[in-house]
Amino acid sequence: MQTNQGWALHTDKYQITMMYAHWKNGSHLKRKAFDLYFRKLPFGNGFAVFAGLERAIQYLENLRFTEEDIRYLADQPEHYDPSFLDLLREFRFTGDVYSMQEGTLAFPNEPLLRLEGTVMELQLVETALLNFIGYQTLIATKAARMRTVAENDLLLEFGSRRAQETDAALWGARAAYLAGFDGTSNLKAGEQFGIPTSGTHSHAWVQDFESELDAFRAFAKAFPDNAILLVDTYDTLKSGVPHAIQVGLELKKQGHNLAGIRLDSGDLAFLSKKARKMLDEAGLTDTKIVASSDLDEDTLLNLKSQGARVDSWGVGTRLITAYDQPSLGAVYKLVARDVDGQWQPTIKISSNPEKVTTPGVKTVHRIIDRDTGKARGDLITPAHKGLDEKRPLTLFHPVHTYRKKKVHHFRAVELLTPVIQKGQRQKDLPTLEEARRYHQQQRSLFWEEYLRLLNPEEYPVDLSKDLWETKQELIQNIYRQIREENGK
Amino acid sequence: MQTNQGWALHTDKYQITMMYAHWKNGSHLKRKAFDLYFRKLPFGNGFAVFAGLERAIQYLENLRFTEEDIRYLADQPEHYDPSFLDLLREFRFTGDVYSMQEGTLAFPNEPLLRLEGTVMELQLVETALLNFIGYQTLIATKAARMRTVAENDLLLEFGSRRAQETDAALWGARAAYLAGFDGTSNLKAGEQFGIPTSGTHSHAWVQDFESELDAFRAFAKAFPDNAILLVDTYDTLKSGVPHAIQVGLELKKQGHNLAGIRLDSGDLAFLSKKARKMLDEAGLTDTKIVASSDLDEDTLLNLKSQGARVDSWGVGTRLITAYDQPSLGAVYKLVARDVDGQWQPTIKISSNPEKVTTPGVKTVHRIIDRDTGKARGDLITPAHKGLDEKRPLTLFHPVHTYRKKKVHHFRAVELLTPVIQKGQRQKDLPTLEEARRYHQQQRSLFWEEYLRLLNPEEYPVDLSKDLWETKQELIQNIYRQIREENGK
Repeated sequence: MQTNQGWALHTDKYQITMMYAHWKNGSHLKRKAFDLYFRKLPFGNGFAVFAGLERAIQYLENLRFTEEDIRYLADQPEHYDPSFLDLLREFRFTGDVYSMQEGTLAFPNEPLLRLEGTVMELQLVETALLNFIGYQTLIATKAARMRTVAENDLLLEFGSRRAQETDAALWGARAAYLAGFDGTSNLKAGEQFGIPTSGTHSHAWVQDFESELDAFRAFAKAFPDNAILLVDTYDTLKSGVPHAIQVGLELKKQGHNLAGIRLDSGDLAFLSKKARKMLDEAGLTDTKIVASSDLDEDTLLNLKSQGARVDSWGVGTRLITAYDQPSLGAVYKLVARDVDGQWQPTIKISSNPEKVTTPGVKTVHRIIDRDTGKARGDLITPAHKGLDEKRPLTLFHPVHTYRKKKVHHFRAVELLTPVIQKGQRQKDLPTLEEARRYHQQQRSLFWEEYLRLLNPEEYPVDLSKDLWETKQELIQNIYRQIREENGK
Repeated sequence: MQTNQGWALHTDKYQITMMYAHWKNGSHLKRKAFDLYFRKLPFGNGFAVFAGLERAIQYLENLRFTEEDIRYLADQPEHYDPSFLDLLREFRFTGDVYSMQEGTLAFPNEPLLRLEGTVMELQLVETALLNFIGYQTLIATKAARMRTVAENDLLLEFGSRRAQETDAALWGARAAYLAGFDGTSNLKAGEQFGIPTSGTHSHAWVQDFESELDAFRAFAKAFPDNAILLVDTYDTLKSGVPHAIQVGLELKKQGHNLAGIRLDSGDLAFLSKKARKMLDEAGLTDTKIVASSDLDEDTLLNLKSQGARVDSWGVGTRLITAYDQPSLGAVYKLVARDVDGQWQPTIKISSNPEKVTTPGVKTVHRIIDRDTGKARGDLITPAHKGLDEKRPLTLFHPVHTYRKKKVHHFRAVELLTPVIQKGQRQKDLPTLEEARRYHQQQRSLFWEEYLRLLNPEEYPVDLSKDLWETKQELIQNIYRQIREENGK
């Protein structure tokens, strides 16, 4: 939420540096292909939930350098040539974007997005795309873990105050909703994305009256049918719950209903069971119990296994910051360059084998067993070539390649589809509600074993034979070249 | 960086809920005082670096409900009374803000900000203030730890792509600079805050040429005097460094200088020493070495202790997300309410003793020993009362109160000063450069023992006797009341 509307400078300086060096080199309009992906699943989860596309598309469509941006660049010590700055003045994103749909279950090393375009534009957008997709995918994945544990309980995102600044609060709320949360406390997220919002009151409300009972009465008066009373300001069971019950009974006499109470500290399993009993004995069986207090999927799992009587969970810090792993570590790598109208695959070698890139313009197919309706594995193949569903497929275990399986009766769903072509949006993206339903439907394609929180099975993501061979060949070429230069 | 400029709905729904309930109750214009503080230092550090005030002030000054916001609220299931919505249309922040200066070293349980105003306005702003101050203070503190370890090396913030969305990238870069970083890769942060920016090139640049040597030559041609060449695309010592040296020697012949090389993977201690030797032997003694690759203060400390020959460190993910503790957990608590023109202190009890609030309208004094020039401790006292520097002070250890010390010859610096009065900014805030210098000067007030990374001494933060007594009295009152109600 900045006053300055320019997006273009939300990028690393080295992008501009490279754009300039390409321009000086005369190569700035050459076409390239980049993949955006992550190398490792967060939180020990068995899958990630792809999110952030709407934000990314919004960004690409509105990408402009303002006059202020140009002035800023002109003042840099690099003394960029004025003709280069003129080029930036006219800059528009004119490339092609192929992407998974938001809500898709995604796995390591498969492209979430593939971009094709000039090297100028594809360098410029790297930083922001990683920033958007990385964060939303991370939060959606964390939220999906909580959704698994919470079963049919209501899950509410309450983390705005603990988020890493404004945009994180907003887009994090969206990502959580996409992956199965039921609402957020952030009104801006409600306004902007149509997410249901909810809120109760804070301790300050209670402290601000001569007594807790006065505070509850005043609140119930304002919201006779949807008051949720926070009961732990002084003493949950000796003060908060009895006062809430008193007010609940008063509301009942007036033909209203106390919507709920909220527990925000202490032993939530014990307190919720006690409170439920007290409410029920008073006849307030419709009054719900909301719990909040540093929750995450592990606490949730434990509390539920202890029989906590909670109807609705408010989750803050640990969701909105992805507390146990606050970055997805997504990357964006050059995979091919246009040489005389042909895509030439490129590679980056690393002493760290999992950092070696997979060359070529690629797509991802999800292989669905036609008998069970379940996903058998993903197959990465060269793009634009299709996959013959008639011929049996052999899928290899991603690490232990001696483990392989043959799939006969399947359909292959291509996960990357064009969302922007020549800079133009191809179709309306699904609404957030549609994406949320799509995610639930996608989850149902996977066996339990891949979805569980702890030690999930590794879902197979395989390279097609031709891709695998190209990769090996490029690796060999590079090592040969290095050996030759070092005279061995 | 939203298209919608309204700030007011970046808040938790319960703020609006409470504002409405106060309005219904006729108490919405009653004056209150709130403290914003944190309870526990992050990262095991001995201090935090207060940051985020500029952002907070900007927010308070511009706080308005747009017509879109009002329409959104009107559509909510709570059916807010139209006269309440009219009140929101006219809403302006008219309260008083007392704050520490950005860059101040801050400690647990002392107010960083105190706000006085109507309960309406003070509730509305809670979420956003915690969001801004919490995040920037967290990142500034993390950055300060890295500054300690890096000694006089250059420190560069490279985390934008891994930040939790756009605002975090931007304001995180600012917080890092405030606490001693030398620059950022984020151009927007450069444009908006005047932070020096830096950038090299990525692996994609190298992959995009027929050979690494061609890539380096083309880059050096564009930046003959400030090229930094990334040397790990294929093989750092066998390919990258030799090619960089070759280009460096070619530049030299043309009267230029290769500015640097960048190491981005592998054993940075080993590689930097080897690379330094190779550069020096080739006569490229002025070529600097930049290192990046998942750095944090621990890696930095280790690499430096191994004699790494790195001139400049690029720090990404672990700084910008505060990886090991991604939230400060700041809180905002009602501490007093105006009753017939008098401040009446309020308290919140908790079964968790460190969550009990400290009642009353308070300020913080830093007690500086006049002989040594060093800080002896902080003293929290009732506000607006001053502190007599002529009388000796007894400071108690914050936990083990039997440990106390008497301070005779001291000056007391009040840390909270008015920055907004009746909604009006009182004076220009320090520029970022001034705040950065102020922070360095503030650090010098502290003994080493408080500043070290591991197991720092606990800096004394003490409550004045009257505050301590008020607190005990309020706790007693509440427990008495609960006992009476429970008939014991």
